[in-house]
Amino acid sequence: MLISMKNISELMVDLAYSALIFNNKEIAEEVKYLEEKIDENYYLLQEEAVKKAIEDGNASAAVVLIRLATSIEAISDAAVQIADVVLRDIEPHPVLKESIKESDITITRGRVSEDSVLAGKTLGELNLASETGMWIIAIKRGHAWIFGPTENTKILADDILLAKGPIEGVQHFLRLCSGKDKKI
Amino acid sequence: MLISMKNISELMVDLAYSALIFNNKEIAEEVKYLEEKIDENYYLLQEEAVKKAIEDGNASAAVVLIRLATSIEAISDAAVQIADVVLRDIEPHPVLKESIKESDITITRGRVSEDSVLAGKTLGELNLASETGMWIIAIKRGHAWIFGPTENTKILADDILLAKGPIEGVQHFLRLCSGKDKKI
Repeated sequence: MLISMKNISELMVDLAYSALIFNNKEIAEEVKYLEEKIDENYYLLQEEAVKKAIEDGNASAAVVLIRLATSIEAISDAAVQIADVVLRDIEPHPVLKESIKESDITITRGRVSEDSVLAGKTLGELNLASETGMWIIAIKRGHAWIFGPTENTKILADDILLAKGPIEGVQHFLRLCSGKDKKI
Repeated sequence: MLISMKNISELMVDLAYSALIFNNKEIAEEVKYLEEKIDENYYLLQEEAVKKAIEDGNASAAVVLIRLATSIEAISDAAVQIADVVLRDIEPHPVLKESIKESDITITRGRVSEDSVLAGKTLGELNLASETGMWIIAIKRGHAWIFGPTENTKILADDILLAKGPIEGVQHFLRLCSGKDKKI
């Protein structure tokens, strides 16, 4: 449960910055939605941890778990605060958006063309993260979004991919999307 | 200044999980040290933002900046809480450490052998992050640590590298360290 919270909180931070960079309310809304999931997990985890502590007659494991879960919950709250800037219709200064994009680890988006090597393959088949450093955090397909895709998620032509990764990996990623680069 | 805060807070979260996984107090201490840097930046940024707002007669840019800085500061506080588990001598349950390692994005460490292709090259020359997905977050050299190395940081034989990246990139990374894999 803790690992699921950790993964969701990391996705939330990435999506919050994405919402900011692309001034996108749908992404910001997803951050808020994920916060509900985090909260559910958080309360369940606290309960389970304390029950287990009573069973074992030992507090320490429960204390560590609850402390970590509380920290992760705080990270997810911070992500909501970031996303909230977008939901409140405060458009951040273009310079701010540009500089967030120029972090060491950036977020970019690319549209998958018909002749892209990515089209028709699952993320598991592509190994994009380990081959290019670029990690797909969301996919826009038509009007729908897939947030936090898994290795079984198939990429289709016309998908818009949101990817997080090192700034030096961006150009190759965009050329893979457009079909200019054929080798991953 | 905000981007520097963002980069430091991300490094802090990665280091906090590393401290937990490797039960390492030196890494945990670095998280605390970085928190001081974040705080300094945070107060300076608030001051500068408000001064600029007065100059411009406009509040909105300052409000967004302060809100984002506050969120980033909250993330760094959460990282300190995670690191604090290690500093308080509470050894997390092995199962917990293992499961953190098995997140989609994991943290691993490898020792650079004499015949590793990494030895003697800078991170900028290697492009490890975009070629393998593995991001070097810290280097242990003898008794000293380099936290948050830059593209100019040179890797030496016998360095211990702490790397963050997709779980499917770990084996190749470790073989690059040991010298078994010659091609990045």
